[in-house]
Amino acid sequence: MKKHNFSAGPSILPQEVFEKAAQAVLDFNGMGLSILEISHRSKEFIAVMEEARALVKKLMKLGDDYEVLFLQGGASLQFVMAPFNLMKEGGKAAYLDSGSWAAAAIKEGKKFGTVDVVGSSKEEKYSFIPKDYTVGTEYDFFHCTSNNTIYGTQMKEFPKTEAPIVCDMSSDIFSREIDFSQFGIIYAGAQKNMGPSGATLVVVKKDILGKTGRNIPSYLDYSLHISKDSMFNTPPVFAVYCSLLTLQWIENNGGLAAAEARNNAKAKLLYDEIDNNPLFECFSVPEDRGTMNVSFYLTDESKKEAFDAAWKAAGISGLNGHRSLGGYRASIYNAMPIESVQVLVDVMKSL
Amino acid sequence: MKKHNFSAGPSILPQEVFEKAAQAVLDFNGMGLSILEISHRSKEFIAVMEEARALVKKLMKLGDDYEVLFLQGGASLQFVMAPFNLMKEGGKAAYLDSGSWAAAAIKEGKKFGTVDVVGSSKEEKYSFIPKDYTVGTEYDFFHCTSNNTIYGTQMKEFPKTEAPIVCDMSSDIFSREIDFSQFGIIYAGAQKNMGPSGATLVVVKKDILGKTGRNIPSYLDYSLHISKDSMFNTPPVFAVYCSLLTLQWIENNGGLAAAEARNNAKAKLLYDEIDNNPLFECFSVPEDRGTMNVSFYLTDESKKEAFDAAWKAAGISGLNGHRSLGGYRASIYNAMPIESVQVLVDVMKSL
Repeated sequence: MKKHNFSAGPSILPQEVFEKAAQAVLDFNGMGLSILEISHRSKEFIAVMEEARALVKKLMKLGDDYEVLFLQGGASLQFVMAPFNLMKEGGKAAYLDSGSWAAAAIKEGKKFGTVDVVGSSKEEKYSFIPKDYTVGTEYDFFHCTSNNTIYGTQMKEFPKTEAPIVCDMSSDIFSREIDFSQFGIIYAGAQKNMGPSGATLVVVKKDILGKTGRNIPSYLDYSLHISKDSMFNTPPVFAVYCSLLTLQWIENNGGLAAAEARNNAKAKLLYDEIDNNPLFECFSVPEDRGTMNVSFYLTDESKKEAFDAAWKAAGISGLNGHRSLGGYRASIYNAMPIESVQVLVDVMKSL
Repeated sequence: MKKHNFSAGPSILPQEVFEKAAQAVLDFNGMGLSILEISHRSKEFIAVMEEARALVKKLMKLGDDYEVLFLQGGASLQFVMAPFNLMKEGGKAAYLDSGSWAAAAIKEGKKFGTVDVVGSSKEEKYSFIPKDYTVGTEYDFFHCTSNNTIYGTQMKEFPKTEAPIVCDMSSDIFSREIDFSQFGIIYAGAQKNMGPSGATLVVVKKDILGKTGRNIPSYLDYSLHISKDSMFNTPPVFAVYCSLLTLQWIENNGGLAAAEARNNAKAKLLYDEIDNNPLFECFSVPEDRGTMNVSFYLTDESKKEAFDAAWKAAGISGLNGHRSLGGYRASIYNAMPIESVQVLVDVMKSL
C-alpha cells in the first residue's frame, strides 16, 4: 500500500514522476540505454538539462539577466559558495537568523568576512520570523531562509535593500508566487519540492558576480558554471532528470499560482484542525506559519501512544518532528495530495 | 534493443543494478515508498549507507584507520577539498601531470599553495605515464591520477614516499587489486565503475587530517563528514543506493581479483586486435596501456565512414574519442561483458 508520506525531505514527489523515472532507469526515451548510463554530453541529456533550466526561469518569470544552474552538495555547499562568490576580502554581510539552517549558513559566512546578524528569533526557539530590521548599503549581500523547515515558519515579505538578497528556498521553492526578481541568488536542495536528493538548484542574477577579487576554486565559482551551461563537470544526471519531470508536473498543473492555491487549501485544512482541537498546538506564531511544514505538538502527552498508533495505522509515515524540537511535523509539499492531509486531520479528530 | 555501451562516463552498469534500481524507484524494500522520497535518516537508508561504506573497505582490504565517505560534486570538488584539507598555509604539494584531469587538479592545488609538478607527459600529448621522479618529505602530499580516461594510460606502480598519496581513481576504481593502504586519500566520481553520476567516493586515512591550521568551510571538511558518518547533510540517496548495488555485484562476482581477471581478458582481446590490424593504432605507449579505456585511431581516415556505420549498425554506442583527442575510445569498465568487446572486435576485423 502506498503510504501518506509527510517526510520533511527527501520527501514526496508526484506519482507520475516515480513512474517515468523508473521507466527511464530501464530505458531512456527508447535509446536502448538506461538514463544512468548515458553520457551527460549526449544530445538527449543536454536537452533535459536545457529544458529544466528554461522551465525554472519560466516558472519564476525571470529574464535573461538570470542564469539557472543544477549543482551538487545541497544547501550546505551553497552556505559556502554564496559568500565565496559575493563577499569581498574584508567585506561584510547581513544574515537573518530565523532557524537552525539559517544559523548554519551564518557559521559558514563568518569564515569569509564579517557577519552582522540583523535579526534573530533564536532566544524564542525560532518560533517567529524576525522583523523590523534594515539592511544598509554597507553589506555585500543579505542572506535569509524563506521557509524554516524545522519550525514551519515562512517569510511572507523580503526586505527592500540595495544589497543582493541571497535566499535559501530549499523547503518552499516553487510553492507560491513571489517576485523572484527581487533576489540576487536563490538556491534550494532539490529534495523537498523539486526532485530527489543529489541536485541543488541555483538561480543567479549575473550582474552581482565577479566583484570580490577572490581566487575562487573552480567548482565553487558560479561564473564558471554559468560559462559551461551548468556542465562544468558531470552533473547529477538522474536527479536533474527527475527535477525536470517535477517541473513539468508543476507547469502542467497550472504553474506556481495553482500550486499556491493548492498549498493554501492543504495548510488551512491542517491549521484549522490544530486551532480547533484542544489536543494540538503549533510551535510557531500564527502570523508566520507557512504552507510547507506544519510543526505541532500534543498538549496532553498521555495521548502520545494513542496518536502515534492511530496515524501509523492510517498509513501515514514521516510525521515525527525534527530531533531538535520534538513533537510532530507534517510536511505538506507540492506533491502531497489534500486527500492525505484529510487522512491526518481525520486521525487528529478521532483522538 | 539493448546497446553495447562503450561510453566513458556516465557509463554501463550491471543490468541487475538497473532492474533493482528501477524497482526501488517504484517501491523500496516493500516500504510503500519510493527510494526517492524516503528520509535519509530512515533506518532503511542508514542501512544502505553503512553497508556501502563497509563494502568499500572490505573490497579494498582496508582497516579501521580508514574512513569511507559518499559525497557530492565529483572529482572536480575533490581537486579543491584535497588541498584544502591537506596543504598547510604556505605549504607545498607534488603533483603528477599525466592527463587533462591531472592538470585540472594541479590548477586547483595552486590556489592553496606551491605546486611542484614532479613529472609530466603533456608535451607528448599524455601518451605515457611519467616515471623516474621522486617525492621528498618536504611535500604535504603527492597527487596522482591512477587512470587517464581520455588517453587510456594507467599507473601500474605508485611511488614510495613519506608524503600522503592522494589518488584520483575515478576511472579505474574497483577494477583491479592494489595495495590500497599505500594511499592517504582515494577519491572517485561514481559514474564509471561504481554507480550513476551524483555520488563521489572518498576514502580517507584518518591520521593525515587536521594538520593544516586552515579554517575549512564545513562541506569541504573531511573530518566533519567523518564525524557525521557521511551524513553531515542530505546525501545523494539514490546514487548511493545504486553504488551499493554495484558494490554488491562486484563482491558477488568474486571481488577485485575476479574483476581484474575479467578486465585483463577484455583488454587483451581489444588490444590484440588493434596491434594485429593495420587499420588501427593506439594513442598511448604499450607499457602504460590500461584496462579501462582503450583510445585508438584509424590509420586510414578514408575508412572512417565505413567504420562508423559498421559499429553503429552493430548496436555499439559511445565509441567516439574525447573531443580533445579525436579518434575512438572504447571504455570497457567492470560491467562491460566480454561479448560486447567481441562485437566491437568483429566489426574491426570486418573492415
